[in-house]
Amino acid sequence: MYSDLPKVLHPLAGQAMLTRVIEAAEATGADKIHVVTGFQSEMVRNHYQDSPYNDRIHWVEQTEQLGTGHAVSQALPAVDPDNQVLVLYGDVPLLEAETLTKLVAACGDSGIAVLTLDTANPAGLGRIVRNNKGDITEIVEEKDANIEQKAITEINTGIMAFSAAKLKAWLEKTNTNNAQGEYYLTDTVAMACADGLKVSSLTTEDEDSVQGVNNRLQLAELERRLQRKQAEQIASNGTTVLNLDRVEIRGHTTFGKDVVIDINVILEGDNHIGDRVRIGPNTVIKNSRIGSDTCIEAFSHLEDCEIQLACQIGPYARLRPGTVLCDKAKIGNFVETKKTVIGKGSKVNHLSYIGDAQVDEAANVGAGTITCNYDGVNKYKTHIKSNAFIGSNTALVAPVTVGMGATTGAGSVITSDIPDGQLAIGRGKQRNIPNWKRPTKKTD
Amino acid sequence: MYSDLPKVLHPLAGQAMLTRVIEAAEATGADKIHVVTGFQSEMVRNHYQDSPYNDRIHWVEQTEQLGTGHAVSQALPAVDPDNQVLVLYGDVPLLEAETLTKLVAACGDSGIAVLTLDTANPAGLGRIVRNNKGDITEIVEEKDANIEQKAITEINTGIMAFSAAKLKAWLEKTNTNNAQGEYYLTDTVAMACADGLKVSSLTTEDEDSVQGVNNRLQLAELERRLQRKQAEQIASNGTTVLNLDRVEIRGHTTFGKDVVIDINVILEGDNHIGDRVRIGPNTVIKNSRIGSDTCIEAFSHLEDCEIQLACQIGPYARLRPGTVLCDKAKIGNFVETKKTVIGKGSKVNHLSYIGDAQVDEAANVGAGTITCNYDGVNKYKTHIKSNAFIGSNTALVAPVTVGMGATTGAGSVITSDIPDGQLAIGRGKQRNIPNWKRPTKKTD
Amino acid sequence: MYSDLPKVLHPLAGQAMLTRVIEAAEATGADKIHVVTGFQSEMVRNHYQDSPYNDRIHWVEQTEQLGTGHAVSQALPAVDPDNQVLVLYGDVPLLEAETLTKLVAACGDSGIAVLTLDTANPAGLGRIVRNNKGDITEIVEEKDANIEQKAITEINTGIMAFSAAKLKAWLEKTNTNNAQGEYYLTDTVAMACADGLKVSSLTTEDEDSVQGVNNRLQLAELERRLQRKQAEQIASNGTTVLNLDRVEIRGHTTFGKDVVIDINVILEGDNHIGDRVRIGPNTVIKNSRIGSDTCIEAFSHLEDCEIQLACQIGPYARLRPGTVLCDKAKIGNFVETKKTVIGKGSKVNHLSYIGDAQVDEAANVGAGTITCNYDGVNKYKTHIKSNAFIGSNTALVAPVTVGMGATTGAGSVITSDIPDGQLAIGRGKQRNIPNWKRPTKKTD
Repeated sequence: MYSDLPKVLHPLAGQAMLTRVIEAAEATGADKIHVVTGFQSEMVRNHYQDSPYNDRIHWVEQTEQLGTGHAVSQALPAVDPDNQVLVLYGDVPLLEAETLTKLVAACGDSGIAVLTLDTANPAGLGRIVRNNKGDITEIVEEKDANIEQKAITEINTGIMAFSAAKLKAWLEKTNTNNAQGEYYLTDTVAMACADGLKVSSLTTEDEDSVQGVNNRLQLAELERRLQRKQAEQIASNGTTVLNLDRVEIRGHTTFGKDVVIDINVILEGDNHIGDRVRIGPNTVIKNSRIGSDTCIEAFSHLEDCEIQLACQIGPYARLRPGTVLCDKAKIGNFVETKKTVIGKGSKVNHLSYIGDAQVDEAANVGAGTITCNYDGVNKYKTHIKSNAFIGSNTALVAPVTVGMGATTGAGSVITSDIPDGQLAIGRGKQRNIPNWKRPTKKTD
Repeated sequence: MYSDLPKVLHPLAGQAMLTRVIEAAEATGADKIHVVTGFQSEMVRNHYQDSPYNDRIHWVEQTEQLGTGHAVSQALPAVDPDNQVLVLYGDVPLLEAETLTKLVAACGDSGIAVLTLDTANPAGLGRIVRNNKGDITEIVEEKDANIEQKAITEINTGIMAFSAAKLKAWLEKTNTNNAQGEYYLTDTVAMACADGLKVSSLTTEDEDSVQGVNNRLQLAELERRLQRKQAEQIASNGTTVLNLDRVEIRGHTTFGKDVVIDINVILEGDNHIGDRVRIGPNTVIKNSRIGSDTCIEAFSHLEDCEIQLACQIGPYARLRPGTVLCDKAKIGNFVETKKTVIGKGSKVNHLSYIGDAQVDEAANVGAGTITCNYDGVNKYKTHIKSNAFIGSNTALVAPVTVGMGATTGAGSVITSDIPDGQLAIGRGKQRNIPNWKRPTKKTD
Repeated sequence: MYSDLPKVLHPLAGQAMLTRVIEAAEATGADKIHVVTGFQSEMVRNHYQDSPYNDRIHWVEQTEQLGTGHAVSQALPAVDPDNQVLVLYGDVPLLEAETLTKLVAACGDSGIAVLTLDTANPAGLGRIVRNNKGDITEIVEEKDANIEQKAITEINTGIMAFSAAKLKAWLEKTNTNNAQGEYYLTDTVAMACADGLKVSSLTTEDEDSVQGVNNRLQLAELERRLQRKQAEQIASNGTTVLNLDRVEIRGHTTFGKDVVIDINVILEGDNHIGDRVRIGPNTVIKNSRIGSDTCIEAFSHLEDCEIQLACQIGPYARLRPGTVLCDKAKIGNFVETKKTVIGKGSKVNHLSYIGDAQVDEAANVGAGTITCNYDGVNKYKTHIKSNAFIGSNTALVAPVTVGMGATTGAGSVITSDIPDGQLAIGRGKQRNIPNWKRPTKKTD
């Protein structure tokens, strides 16, 4: 990866690869998750310090890198021998819980099950050798395979399930008499066969699901396949996606009915998109709820927002954390909001910054309005009451309240509260100066 | 589709699928368009209420869904028996008029012609069975086909042309003795053969053109293929398209010579793009004319605009409906215009809102200028005459006129007209206050 | 191409095709570059007038278009007979210097070498005929090829290297006795064979590298393949690229370690991107240096900028030429800067225009601040000293200096310098007007 970041922390669709593996393991109903780390262990552990998984993870450090068998054996002392063990890899991020659950179930009496892949391109991978009863007899590595074996298209994914007791016994017998001088987990297959046991197996044809990531090219490819798959899923479930290859879902977004997603949209974190919402092109939405019938125009950027019903947003609207738009509110172009509630039917249409504010119902905030919420050390609130009309280019110096139905004159600086219904003006008086001579070009 | 919108109203490249089918039918020179609707008939009809096609459409309601033959027979009473009938489907949106015209012509003496597709993937589709003279003898559905028939790669598209009189006669003889219990239009083929007639045919290899849409995945795929095809067409005709897979043409846009379209551009509705126009990345243009030699920079959004020659627009310019830019006008970043004419060579370069305004020639509108055009109920006009210089952060309270060559001081609020050549200032006078103590951090 | 621009000047990844060919030739260590132009010669020459290559190019005009042999012969009088000649084409833009250097070396004793392509789709191209010793005996054009020859998959790319003396002799013997009535460069192969010489060859399988461009479709395709290849290269070298098909590199950009590039990013001209920089989606960066640990958010646009360490930029930041951000500076949404230095840790967070300014360290520039740097003819500088606090909606009328730790009141127009530590206020005083009657709707 040529990276200072541990490989398993590289994100896929916004989530560290390892997190995906942990989530898949959890979804199988695993009792305990043991994560064996070697290189950069501390960075990996720190990543999960504040995560909900941290309590569930049993961290195991593998101080020497002596192979997969050795890695697994580091965790075994903490495993109840009566349990089953599912072995996953932090860099094989797209396995689905359903497959894993089946693999564990397949483990059964023999105490060993392998997940295999049927692939058109087996080159370089360990082949699954079966006898004429169809039972697995061996896993042969590419370099040891004869011509017949090389023609086998079923390969070993490395994903295996075991009864813990048997796994322990087998791992104790593995050795490093091989090319790499490492303890191999796959050696357990030969041992099980030697014990006269039938090695169970589960075969998948979904290559992506068992694909490992060894470099950023593979990471980029897997990102695309996951994004495409997600896009196909939401399209199948009733969302119109204008380009299945140009929508990014990084996290968990749920969709109502008849949502339309234009090109080049990014949905990050946890979102809910209501019925009939239209998401315009080049839009970024993070951790937000978007109410039904809302329309979000091009180039909008929403983060940690709650948008209620039938709002109109953008283009070029930037809704920062803590923004709440009540029903039918409207935020127009080049407008920034932050920690602000915009009441029902209220409008902020152009070139404004509304921060730490409460705007009640049916207010109109003119172009170029700025809430001056910060004095350099403290932040203050602005309250614009219902039906207020804020004239263009008004500076509202917080803390300040604009009363119900009050008005500010264009270009005013409002430093004190305006009672209900009153007009406040705070600006210089215009003078026209005749005989004005325009500046002339200076020469240096 | 899992949709509340009738399937045939789902848009493809910005246009309802049914509209595309109607347009293709019209382009064949059809005398009358009969649209048979069943489910959600009213929504479909309403969609066309204000469309130019409405007068030409004969709406036919099929109250029971008894198959394709039944659907067609609902429309026949209104068809002159001497005419020809072309049967199309509202969810097969990419057929081209040229193909259809040929199909109708092929109908000829026999009074029946079928559009067939030669495809590598015939599975699931009705095979065209021909005798050794090459004449069609039968259409066999997948489930009824024998092994030899299954190997046939020519399939029935369902698109057919008929002489109306013969069609009427045949449809009267169709029955529901089949698996679905429906009246099939394709049964006419067997009847024509039984009548000793030679069923004409036209074969296409363009799979997209006869592809039906049954879900949003297929809709998304067809959208891509249509967009790609459109992009290839304009590139072939002399437009540089930086990415053929990342330009959206939704509607009808015409192009001059040597236009360059950067990535991720959307052209909606009817547009004309003049010679040598450069359209920057991530730009949205709707229903606009763009004059030759104009340059539109990244992140611009134009709607219902007229841009004359050699204008400079963006980045981040938002030109709303009713904007006219005269030759060499310039609109810069974070500028919004609406119902506004910007005269020859005039500039609005930064962070401004110019609405309901007329700016004459060679005027300069400074950063942060706002036309205060709205008093909460009425809108008023601003007139900035030639060679005027609007200082930065000026609020122009409409109705107001800035005279020829007049100037406004930065930060002024202009509430009354400025005579030609005069300077208007309307702002507070600066006072410097020594011994100012900065606010300190408050604790709650 | 249907273009007024000469074909070889059409850009690929931001650079004229001919420039790429010239660069490849230069990279082989060529003594001199001879460019033979025919149609639109003057436009081609003008394009290179100010380029670093101009001095190295020997321009040769071919007044009649009499074939490739003729074109090359126009340049030969200026070539030393003892030199070697490499023949390239202005519309074959993706050849790599490494291949060309090998081809020249392959030229050797025989004095002739051909670059051939092994391709699955040889149709339409000249086949390389070899005898059973593997020596080239002939190049047969498609139309003259027999069935066996048509099956040959090795084709002539047209790229050849020669000893100049031999080339001269051969070209003098070529004639126009062929279908096109032109002098063919490839005729030299037959002549060399006739002279009993072994024609050397170098075979590539990289189809893109020898692909010629004859129309804008091919240009668009080659653009994609080049962009994809570049993206794969940077991903392989340790940059995370979220979509390998959606990053544009037009020019030369170098990357530090662990850079992350989100979707739809454009890097134009010469850039350097430091370690751990995150480039947000839909960002455009031209000719800039981005310091390590800087984060550039969505929709940002940077040109000719120097960004130092750990800066925070965007979303919607527009940094124009001459912008320098010192360490940890922050530029927020809808902010434009130009010829401006933003000091260490200083912030301009919202809706501001800062031009021709120097902002020292730890200053805070409030929302809606405008530097009024232009009086219609001259530009003036604004200096904001360390720790200054510019209140929201301040207009700074340059030339003006805001002293260290000085403050401006929100909504002020600052026309004269503010001493260190002082507060400057320049705004109207607020009056609240009771009994204010709102405007009523006017009727025309």
